[in-house]
Amino acid sequence: MFETAELGRKISKEDYRAQEPELRMNLLNIQEDLKQANFPVIILIGGVDGAGKGETVNLLHEWMDPRYLETHAFGPPTDEERERPEAWRFWRVLPPKGRIGIFFSSWYTRPIVDCVFGRINEFELDAELALINAFEKELSDDGALIIKFWFHLSKKAQKKRLELLSENPKTRWRVTKIDWKHFKMYDTFRRVSERALRETSTGEAPWTIVEGADNRYRSITVGNHILEQIEKHLAASKQPKKSPPKKKVHPADAYTLLDTLDLTQSLTDEKYKLLLEKYQGKLNLLYRKAKTKNLSAILVFEGWDAAGKGGLIRRITPAMDARDYQIIPIAAPTDEERAQHYLWRFWRQLPRAGRVTIFDRSWYGRVLVERVEGFAREDEWKRAYSEIVNFEEKLYDHGILLLKFWVHIDQDEQMKRFELRQNTPYKHYKITAEDFRNREKWNDYELAANEMIERTATEFAPWHLIEANDKKFARIKALRIFCETLKKRL
Amino acid sequence: MFETAELGRKISKEDYRAQEPELRMNLLNIQEDLKQANFPVIILIGGVDGAGKGETVNLLHEWMDPRYLETHAFGPPTDEERERPEAWRFWRVLPPKGRIGIFFSSWYTRPIVDCVFGRINEFELDAELALINAFEKELSDDGALIIKFWFHLSKKAQKKRLELLSENPKTRWRVTKIDWKHFKMYDTFRRVSERALRETSTGEAPWTIVEGADNRYRSITVGNHILEQIEKHLAASKQPKKSPPKKKVHPADAYTLLDTLDLTQSLTDEKYKLLLEKYQGKLNLLYRKAKTKNLSAILVFEGWDAAGKGGLIRRITPAMDARDYQIIPIAAPTDEERAQHYLWRFWRQLPRAGRVTIFDRSWYGRVLVERVEGFAREDEWKRAYSEIVNFEEKLYDHGILLLKFWVHIDQDEQMKRFELRQNTPYKHYKITAEDFRNREKWNDYELAANEMIERTATEFAPWHLIEANDKKFARIKALRIFCETLKKRL
Repeated sequence: MFETAELGRKISKEDYRAQEPELRMNLLNIQEDLKQANFPVIILIGGVDGAGKGETVNLLHEWMDPRYLETHAFGPPTDEERERPEAWRFWRVLPPKGRIGIFFSSWYTRPIVDCVFGRINEFELDAELALINAFEKELSDDGALIIKFWFHLSKKAQKKRLELLSENPKTRWRVTKIDWKHFKMYDTFRRVSERALRETSTGEAPWTIVEGADNRYRSITVGNHILEQIEKHLAASKQPKKSPPKKKVHPADAYTLLDTLDLTQSLTDEKYKLLLEKYQGKLNLLYRKAKTKNLSAILVFEGWDAAGKGGLIRRITPAMDARDYQIIPIAAPTDEERAQHYLWRFWRQLPRAGRVTIFDRSWYGRVLVERVEGFAREDEWKRAYSEIVNFEEKLYDHGILLLKFWVHIDQDEQMKRFELRQNTPYKHYKITAEDFRNREKWNDYELAANEMIERTATEFAPWHLIEANDKKFARIKALRIFCETLKKRL
Repeated sequence: MFETAELGRKISKEDYRAQEPELRMNLLNIQEDLKQANFPVIILIGGVDGAGKGETVNLLHEWMDPRYLETHAFGPPTDEERERPEAWRFWRVLPPKGRIGIFFSSWYTRPIVDCVFGRINEFELDAELALINAFEKELSDDGALIIKFWFHLSKKAQKKRLELLSENPKTRWRVTKIDWKHFKMYDTFRRVSERALRETSTGEAPWTIVEGADNRYRSITVGNHILEQIEKHLAASKQPKKSPPKKKVHPADAYTLLDTLDLTQSLTDEKYKLLLEKYQGKLNLLYRKAKTKNLSAILVFEGWDAAGKGGLIRRITPAMDARDYQIIPIAAPTDEERAQHYLWRFWRQLPRAGRVTIFDRSWYGRVLVERVEGFAREDEWKRAYSEIVNFEEKLYDHGILLLKFWVHIDQDEQMKRFELRQNTPYKHYKITAEDFRNREKWNDYELAANEMIERTATEFAPWHLIEANDKKFARIKALRIFCETLKKRL
C-alpha cells in the first residue's frame, strides 16, 4: 500500500511558484463559500514522524484564513476526559457546520500506538477500527466531509529526515528521543498502520497517502486535494435532498409489543406509600455506594405525552442528593446544537464520574418525533437506530450504567389526563393545542415506538417498559428496576 | 449578626401543613413565569454544617420542577479548572436566563475556609471579598437575581444536631470526621463567616440568615424568601428600561490620544522582510519557552475596519505551531451566549495552560460597537469599563499574559483600502454596505476608542497602539511588542 508513496515524487521550485498563488486564492475563496454551507470539514492528519505533518498543518494555517480553521492535538486526556468515554474528547471539539477542524493526531493514534507496542493484538485493533468506521460513517452520513491524510516516508527517507532535522540548530528541538525510539519500530509501525488504513479506507472517508519526502510536492498535493474535496462536497450538498416518502398509515389493528402490556396493573395508596418508602430508601443506599465507586448512571425517559414521566422522575430524585444528579429536559436544540451532529448535544451532557444524569426525552427523539413529524428524512432516522446503538455501546464500554424507560399509557388514559390538565389551573400550562394534534398521530407514534424498542433494545441497554395507566404502579416499577440494576452492577 | 438566628424559632406541624401546599404551588407557578423572563436566578447556599443546607436544597428540588433547577457543588478543581482563573469554574455553570442555578458551596467557600485555617489573614480575606462583591455586582447589573442564604446554628444546636444525625443509622453516614473537626473550630468559623457576610451583604445581593435548628421553620422561610424575591424581580424587570439618551456628536476638532500617533511611520520592503524573519524567529523561540513553563497568552486585536488586523494576525501565527494557538473571531453571539452575561462567551474561550489565544475583536465590543450603535444601554457600556478591568485582572492574577492592540489608521487610508477591496475580486467579500455606514460614525467610534483606551489601560494590561497606515510597520511593531513582553515575563 505504501509503495506508491515511495516513488520520490518531487515538484520543482518553478512549478511550485507557478501553482502556489492560485491554489492559495482558491483555498481562501472556497473557505468563504464553505461558511454558508451546511456541513463541517474534518481533516485528519496521521502518518510517519518527520514526514511533514506539522509543517503541512502550519502551512494550511498560512494559506487559509486561520480564523476559520481550528487545529486540535490530543495529549494525555485530562481528568474530565478520563471520566467519559474516549470519544468524548473528540466530540467536544468537532467543528460546527461551515467550519474546518484539523485533527492532528486523532481517534486513530491511540489504537495504532497500542497495537505497535503490543498492548492490544491485531484482532483487537480490528475491533477498534470497526468502531472508528462506524463513527466516521455517522459523521459523514450527517453531511460532514472527512478528509484523511496519511503522511508516509520510506525507512531510509525517515532516517535521513530525522538526521537532517537533528543537524540544524533551528529544528533540532523537534527531534526527541521518542522519535528515535519510534524509528526503531518502523517496520512494526508500518505493518500496523497499513492494516489500519486498509480497514478504514471507506467509501465515505478514504485515506489519501501523501509522499512526505519533498515538501513542495507534499504541500501542493494536500492543498489541491482539500480544494477538490470541498468543491465536490459543496456541489453535491446543493443537490436537493430526497423528499420524505409518503407516510404509510399504520394499520390500527396490528398487534404490537406495546399492546401486550397489561395496563390494568395498579397499586393501592397504602401499598404504594409503603413501597415508595422502601425503594427510595434502597435507592439512597445503592446510589451512594455507586458514587463511592465512581459508577455513573444515565436514565432515559421516553413515553407518551402525559404518561407521567415528570412525576416519575420526581419520585426518583428525592432518594438522591441534589448535588449528585442532573435532569436534562430535551426541547428544541439551541443554534450551537443545530450546527452539529444530532448526537452532539447528548455527548456534551455526559456526566462526570459517579453522577446520575436523567434525560427527560432523549436522543430517541430522532426516531420518534423527528420521524413522525418529518423533521428527519427517512434515511436519517433509519440509520439512527445503529448510530444510537453505537453511542450507547460507548457508554456501556466506559462502565456507565444506562437505563431506558418507555412509560406507556393508552389513548383513553391520555385523554383523561389532558382533560384534567385543562381543568386544573396550575396544570394548565402543561397542555397546548399541539398535544391534541399529536394525539391524532397516535398510530404513527405507536409504530415508531414499537420499531424503536425492537431495534434498540440491546443486551447492554434493554428497554424497560413501564405500564403507567396507574401512576403509582409505574413509579414503583421504575424505582424497583433502577434499584435492581444498580444492585446487580455493584 | 448571628444572634437573631439563635432565637429558637419554630413552626408547628399544623402551621407547616397549612402553608406548604400553597407555597409549593406558588413556587411551581413562578418557575413557569420565570422561563419567559430575561434574567437568571442564582441561589447561594452557605453556612454551618448540620444546619440543613443539603436538606433544604433537596426539598427545593422536590417542591419545584427539578428539570429547570440545577444544583452545582464544587469539590477539588479538575485539572482543566486549575489551568484557568478560579472564577472559570463558576462562570462555566452560571444558569442562562429563565433558569435557576443553586450553588451549594460557592465562591465564598474557599476564601472562608482558607481564612479559618489561617492560610490567609483577615485583610487578605477582605481583598477576596471585595472581588466577590465586584463579581456579584456584575451579575446583578446584568439583570441576574442573586439570593444568598446563610444557614446558622448556635454552637449548642450544632453539637446536638451532629449527635442526633450520628445516632440515627439512616443519617449516620452524613456525619464525617471532618464535620467534628470543623465543629471544634466553631468559634473561628463563626468569626470569619460573620466578617464575610458583613462585607458582602450588598444592596444588590444581601445575605439572608436562616435559623437552621427547626426544619419546618427553615423550609418555609427559604421557600417564601425565594418566592418573594423572584416575584419582585419579575415585576421590576417588566418596567421599561431607560431609553438611551440622545448621543452627543463628538466635536471633530478635539485633539485625542489617537491623534497623537504618527501614522507616517513606515518600513521599506527590504527592511520589513529582514525584521519579519528576525521577529518571527524570536517569537518562535520565546513562545516555545513559554509553553514549557505553562505560560498562557491572550492577544486582543481591536481597531478600525480594514486596519489590517487579519493580516497582522497572519504574520504572528506562522511563528507558532498550529496546535498551540487558536484564533477566536468575534461576531454576533450565538443564542446560548445571548442567554448569558456578555462576558460569558469570553470566559468559555479561555485557553488551557501554555497556549496562545488570539481574539480578533473581543469583549471591547461592549464599549465600541455596542455603545456607538446603541446595542448596549448607556448604563451598560459605562459600567463595562470596570467589569472589563476586573476580568482582565483575574487573567493577570492567574499568570496569563494579556496583550491588547489597537490597530490604528486614519480616514483617508480606510477609504483607500475600502476601494481596493471593492476592486479586487477575491477581497470583495470583505466589504459590505455596512462598512460604509460605519464610516459615517467615525467621530463616534473615535470618541469611544479614546475613552476605552483611557479607562482600560492598566498597569497589568496596557493598550499597545499600533500605527497602521503602513501595514509593514504595523506588523513589525506588534510582533516586536509580543516578543518583548514575552521575554520580560520569562
